[in-house]
Amino acid sequence: MNHKELIGAVAARLDMPEDYVSRLLEVAVDTMSAQLCEGNQVGVQGFGTLEVRRKEERISVNPATQVRTLVPPKLVVNFKQSNVLKDKLKGLPHE
Amino acid sequence: MNHKELIGAVAARLDMPEDYVSRLLEVAVDTMSAQLCEGNQVGVQGFGTLEVRRKEERISVNPATQVRTLVPPKLVVNFKQSNVLKDKLKGLPHE
Repeated sequence: MNHKELIGAVAARLDMPEDYVSRLLEVAVDTMSAQLCEGNQVGVQGFGTLEVRRKEERISVNPATQVRTLVPPKLVVNFKQSNVLKDKLKGLPHE
Repeated sequence: MNHKELIGAVAARLDMPEDYVSRLLEVAVDTMSAQLCEGNQVGVQGFGTLEVRRKEERISVNPATQVRTLVPPKLVVNFKQSNVLKDKLKGLPHE
């Protein structure tokens, strides 16, 4: 499901114009991004928590050439599912 | 920032009642959860992609007792940040 389909589905369920849903989601995403960029975690009820984690630098070896490269440290956003979402996933088959 | 603060911030920025924002976010989260539970990935523009990944079973060793336990396979929701969010994070100091 892409962004447009998500907006369409939410708008249909709430019987609201898509523009409206789109604007609200945009502001929500922007607010969450700003919090993450300040180093704060963001919790969304019934869904999960987002936070920025630092990945340490590491040495990567190209298996074909054996050339070793230093991968610099980087910041990634980590999502931790809430227990509610975890329970919902239990219904999903382990492919 | 917790769920209540997120709703407050979005409502203030859009000058909308909090009930309204809360309901819309609830439906968005519910829609995304349902998609994830069906095994689909969900993309949110300017933010990232959520998808369910299977973590393989593994053997965990308790370092104190050396007791080995089989941790069963499980499904976790993985978040992959979009390039837009990745660029924003570059401004954050690597603590």
